[in-house]
Amino acid sequence: MAEYIEPLQRLADKFRKLDGIGAKTALRLAFCVLNFTESEAREFADALIAAKTDICLCEKCQNISTGPLCSVCLSEDRDESVICVVEDPRAVIAIEKMHGYRGLYHVLHGALSPMRHIGPDQIKIKELMARIEEGNVGEVILATNSTVEGEATAMYLARLITPYGVKISRIANGVPVGGDLEYTDEITLKRALDGRYDMN
Amino acid sequence: MAEYIEPLQRLADKFRKLDGIGAKTALRLAFCVLNFTESEAREFADALIAAKTDICLCEKCQNISTGPLCSVCLSEDRDESVICVVEDPRAVIAIEKMHGYRGLYHVLHGALSPMRHIGPDQIKIKELMARIEEGNVGEVILATNSTVEGEATAMYLARLITPYGVKISRIANGVPVGGDLEYTDEITLKRALDGRYDMN
Repeated sequence: MAEYIEPLQRLADKFRKLDGIGAKTALRLAFCVLNFTESEAREFADALIAAKTDICLCEKCQNISTGPLCSVCLSEDRDESVICVVEDPRAVIAIEKMHGYRGLYHVLHGALSPMRHIGPDQIKIKELMARIEEGNVGEVILATNSTVEGEATAMYLARLITPYGVKISRIANGVPVGGDLEYTDEITLKRALDGRYDMN
Repeated sequence: MAEYIEPLQRLADKFRKLDGIGAKTALRLAFCVLNFTESEAREFADALIAAKTDICLCEKCQNISTGPLCSVCLSEDRDESVICVVEDPRAVIAIEKMHGYRGLYHVLHGALSPMRHIGPDQIKIKELMARIEEGNVGEVILATNSTVEGEATAMYLARLITPYGVKISRIANGVPVGGDLEYTDEITLKRALDGRYDMN
């Protein structure tokens, strides 16, 4: 037996398809499954299928949802005139955890990236523009990531939305709270200085 | 939406049951699955169930196998008088990769550990003793890990096997090949010195 037996290797190959899981970790995880009971393995398998079959995208904001509308869009005490545009459903969760934002969201499911062949048609820009065209939007907060792709996407969207006369804002760059100036990179520090606010 | 939607959280909880996967990684992996196609998710689910239903333990050596006997025990050009005792199926694969061992194996599926309530009855010692009692075994190589539990298990087995008049050996401790004396711990270094061999 110079090789791994087939069902084990096949399971490891599946684990390997997950981001950040290499060959060694995949095998380690596959061996973990051998220590599961059969019903635990079945529950895991059911959860995998359910994640694909029971989760869809909210018709309005494109966030992941278990129904046609997500819980944010369904909620009655949200300010429907503000849309916060994010790249990813995880960003929605991060902002919701802050408990300070009462507007709605729009999830792009990616950012523009010519390098990875992701253009405006590959992310949910059309759906965002449709919401703005409806005319009830007062402000769009561009909360894409502070990466090259995220910044480019924010700039692209700003140009696209400007004709509609909607307020457009971008989340601030600066020193993270608890962060040390000494360990802050130059670009962040420049943005933090540029974005300084009055204290008197 | 202050929480993750249920199917996503449920899948993350399953990933969390795998060794070395924490809450954050589990969520990241669950999000990865959302990017799978439904058929990819189903194949993953099938592989999970197959790993439990199609893999059993070899009746002879207790190694993982897809049939009643594993490929090593089935092979005709192995020396059946030598049994190499290991803790884990992964150790079998490691030794097989070396392409230098022609005997059989015995997989204990663990090591004695009073701290974790693992006694002789919780690992495959009974099955090993049955093979020795058959009388065809000439040498037992104790290749349990060089941990406290592995050493204790080796010592326990040595005492158990001694009455049968079988040769008992233990794999050597020493400096790993390519290893630097400077970075070798004191115990390993002492074992390497104790185990020194003649070069003339």
